[in-house]
Amino acid sequence: MQIVITGGAGFLGARLARTLLASGSLSLAGAPAQPIERITLVDRVAPPDDLAGDTRIAAAVGDLNDQLAAPDASYWATAAAVFHLAAAVSGECEADFDLGMRSNFAATHALLERLRGLGTRPVLVFSSSLAVFGHSPEQPVPAVIGDETLPTPQSSYGIQKFIGEQLVADYTRKGFVRGRSVRLMTVSVRPGRPNGAASSFFSGMIREPLAGVRAACPVPDDTLVALASPARTIEGLVRAAEVDDTRWGPRTALNLPSISLTVGEMAAALERVAGPTATALLDRTPDPAIQRIVKTWPGRFEAPRAAALGLKTDASFEQVIRDYVRENPDAVKLPVNA
Amino acid sequence: MQIVITGGAGFLGARLARTLLASGSLSLAGAPAQPIERITLVDRVAPPDDLAGDTRIAAAVGDLNDQLAAPDASYWATAAAVFHLAAAVSGECEADFDLGMRSNFAATHALLERLRGLGTRPVLVFSSSLAVFGHSPEQPVPAVIGDETLPTPQSSYGIQKFIGEQLVADYTRKGFVRGRSVRLMTVSVRPGRPNGAASSFFSGMIREPLAGVRAACPVPDDTLVALASPARTIEGLVRAAEVDDTRWGPRTALNLPSISLTVGEMAAALERVAGPTATALLDRTPDPAIQRIVKTWPGRFEAPRAAALGLKTDASFEQVIRDYVRENPDAVKLPVNA
Repeated sequence: MQIVITGGAGFLGARLARTLLASGSLSLAGAPAQPIERITLVDRVAPPDDLAGDTRIAAAVGDLNDQLAAPDASYWATAAAVFHLAAAVSGECEADFDLGMRSNFAATHALLERLRGLGTRPVLVFSSSLAVFGHSPEQPVPAVIGDETLPTPQSSYGIQKFIGEQLVADYTRKGFVRGRSVRLMTVSVRPGRPNGAASSFFSGMIREPLAGVRAACPVPDDTLVALASPARTIEGLVRAAEVDDTRWGPRTALNLPSISLTVGEMAAALERVAGPTATALLDRTPDPAIQRIVKTWPGRFEAPRAAALGLKTDASFEQVIRDYVRENPDAVKLPVNA
Repeated sequence: MQIVITGGAGFLGARLARTLLASGSLSLAGAPAQPIERITLVDRVAPPDDLAGDTRIAAAVGDLNDQLAAPDASYWATAAAVFHLAAAVSGECEADFDLGMRSNFAATHALLERLRGLGTRPVLVFSSSLAVFGHSPEQPVPAVIGDETLPTPQSSYGIQKFIGEQLVADYTRKGFVRGRSVRLMTVSVRPGRPNGAASSFFSGMIREPLAGVRAACPVPDDTLVALASPARTIEGLVRAAEVDDTRWGPRTALNLPSISLTVGEMAAALERVAGPTATALLDRTPDPAIQRIVKTWPGRFEAPRAAALGLKTDASFEQVIRDYVRENPDAVKLPVNA
């Protein structure tokens, strides 16, 4: 079996690749598991060294729209599954409208057209986002988001993701691909560097203090957020590829499971893990641009459809932090409590 | 004030133009009414003679995508309001996927880009459709559709209209246009010829018998449909242009008011107006292709948001038929009861 991951050199893409390689095989849409022979990582940048050194990994480095237009990009035709994770992130899309329309709107359409043209009907897992939901003074959202809540995006990123869901649904209904859209929750704790996502600080406010570095916490303590760990997020993406059509159900996007907590509770969990030295590194200067986006996102979900697929929430955010510490020992400089 | 109507030579576009010309002025988004100096009808075909003969009417005949790409199409820049009615219809889009993507998806995006590039921020009324709603075995919809029901389109036409709503919402949020999306109900009785819409028979089953001609009624008698007359539909489009931002409310599309009745009740209303001679002309041969689309559409709505804008439903379908008879005397050949 051959697999393509767009955005495959990014944090989630690389982690998904490692998870698939470690498993060695994948069951697609209810079919018996098949060994994974090749995973092509499509990204603007080269994959991390550990992946680049694996003989089952191929890298297609370049702009996704170019890769989709390239006649000699043969990996599209041989892919039994495509995980479409590549995207411009929320903050970028709000600052640069054309970038978002090119990277999210046009690229997702171009991907679907390329796959349709092949006639191979691959499984396509599309990573959408909780950012499809948004409240505003004119458009309040329910206190708890359910599987059938109407998305009313309040950012260009959210609109572009929601449009991607609609395209995936119709290309699936027409039999061009076997698409499954999953809405990722706010992923924390992401390792590595900050990015242009408005949600970037939800990881930075944990990761940076653990490294002994000051970090921005630009929103009020009572800001509620729906979080999932990297591990739970990858489980959701893989599960979306695995289940058969009947279990998957409607073509509407699936809200992944999340835990709800406030930014203050996140800081308290950090303090339980690494003491007041850690939380003293948090810089509480408000950032209006980030607040404007983040405050539109809902913080509480009920996800019975995901639960019926066997997907679980994290046990606690403290446990999520401890998992991060265990998985990223080189990035943690402060002493950690047992 | 200058106005553009895409699809302006079609039935609804031409009726909208006549309504605006008869009024002579328009209040846009809460501003004081201004006299209408020019209405440009963009369409593949020339306008009807009565409109072509009015000095305030201009015709831009050609493909909408071409008209949007034409640098010398100066009417875009001078338009204070654009009514975007042009579309490939539901049956066509299901039979020819590329046609629908070009005429609905690409053209709506191109229109928004053209208007954005002008910097004139016109009022844009986008005609969406109840076809954004759809039920399927995996995705039942509520018995009554409300203003915040999640659309789950079951046709390419419905998907393309729903994507158009999202684009209009974000281009509005960004301040590129002042967009208002309205979801048209099934419009009946349309005069003229059948078209490629799956809903075409909802008019044909009244119009053709009144003309003494046999007509297809290809769905079961108990098929429930949410109908609005041409007059109520045009009122909704004009009202969407008129109200100020606060009264309009959220950027989510507005469901227009409708009356719910079955196809059997429609036939009974026809019989009350024109007797059993009329209903004897109905041909009850089922058409699976039409049934497949129509049966996914919901037949019952509650539209409090539209009601709050002062929009009304038709008094009865019998009255709608009598209005058709009065407005189209040359097309009615059977004797009509008082």
